[in-house]
Amino acid sequence: MTARTPDSARDIPEATVARLPVYLRALTGLAEDGTTTCSSEELAASAGVNSAKLRKDLSYLGSYGTRGVGYDVEYLRYQIAREIGVTQDWPVVIVGIGNLGHALANYSGFRSRGFRVVALLDADPDRHTDVVAGLEVRSFEDLETIVAEHDVSIGVIATPAVAAQSVADRMVASGITSILNFAPTVLTAPEGVDVRKVDLSIELQILAYHEQRKAGAIETEVLS
Amino acid sequence: MTARTPDSARDIPEATVARLPVYLRALTGLAEDGTTTCSSEELAASAGVNSAKLRKDLSYLGSYGTRGVGYDVEYLRYQIAREIGVTQDWPVVIVGIGNLGHALANYSGFRSRGFRVVALLDADPDRHTDVVAGLEVRSFEDLETIVAEHDVSIGVIATPAVAAQSVADRMVASGITSILNFAPTVLTAPEGVDVRKVDLSIELQILAYHEQRKAGAIETEVLS
Repeated sequence: MTARTPDSARDIPEATVARLPVYLRALTGLAEDGTTTCSSEELAASAGVNSAKLRKDLSYLGSYGTRGVGYDVEYLRYQIAREIGVTQDWPVVIVGIGNLGHALANYSGFRSRGFRVVALLDADPDRHTDVVAGLEVRSFEDLETIVAEHDVSIGVIATPAVAAQSVADRMVASGITSILNFAPTVLTAPEGVDVRKVDLSIELQILAYHEQRKAGAIETEVLS
Repeated sequence: MTARTPDSARDIPEATVARLPVYLRALTGLAEDGTTTCSSEELAASAGVNSAKLRKDLSYLGSYGTRGVGYDVEYLRYQIAREIGVTQDWPVVIVGIGNLGHALANYSGFRSRGFRVVALLDADPDRHTDVVAGLEVRSFEDLETIVAEHDVSIGVIATPAVAAQSVADRMVASGITSILNFAPTVLTAPEGVDVRKVDLSIELQILAYHEQRKAGAIETEVLS
């Protein structure tokens, strides 16, 4: 049989999946401000999307809010977190403990979303005496043991570009099925393994687009 | 008058703007592989979107490709880069030179997209003797001088959460109009200033969603 989920009728479009963490973050912000209910307009504004799209997205989760009241912030948070799977505990290994690996190991946003860093691995023996975020940096040779021991399915690559593909291959061989790649290179992986690449410059490019248009507007103002 | 751009009829939807850097990255990958023309399907697959959406997005740029041939990779790259504004040189300052600031200063993906880091600033005098990515770490007190000298419009915040808002306020006062925030906190800024927040856990959450569904699929397979 093919690897379909039991309720494939409820398959959520990929673009909606990508926005769910953004809604979760917005809802967490609202909850922290003491907000207990919110309208779709408020939530959409916090998340930076239009409210029609938000309502459509949430309808995939069976969440429609209450007319005249809006959404229950805590309940919607729970629904989204459950849908994404971050109500579970996800053990994660990080490979490559340079500056970026250090920063990721210390990143508070992982733990609070259900991601638990269980091991930090590096190929450089000089780093094996370091303790980062309470964890000893271990040899990359320990990968298979750690993946088996902690039942790790998600690996994070923060190595230089040149090492990333061989790290990915070894992760896959050890049983890891999701890879988050911070190395500035494109990775290939067999079917069934999800690879996502973080490009830290994407957000800067979006800012540049708006800056360019602001600059255009100022020129027009000066000339008119 | 209001701050509208000269050609506001060509206003590109925000979701399309957010995808342009993704297309640019995919095109750069194709060009590096020696590909000179590509179909919308090929480009869409590289960028991870559907091809109808890609064609719609590119139509805002006046790019329709050639029937039976597809898109000219180099020309489309240039069109998108010009639209985003990354054919210009964007001087950038980074404030907060801990592990993440170090990693960002060394990140090769900024320079290759037209972002030039002109200064690294930190409030901690102990860091002022460090040289990172060929730049001396300077006092945060130098912000105004540097912004004026290099005509900086984009600032990157990589400080702890507690310092981020005061850094943002000072950036705005110094004339910066776009802020990229890596600190795990929500910033407020006056109208006309764009703030974008990078949440490093978003991509992990998308992987978790798919992992959860893979796990569901395996259970079904075992039970059936």
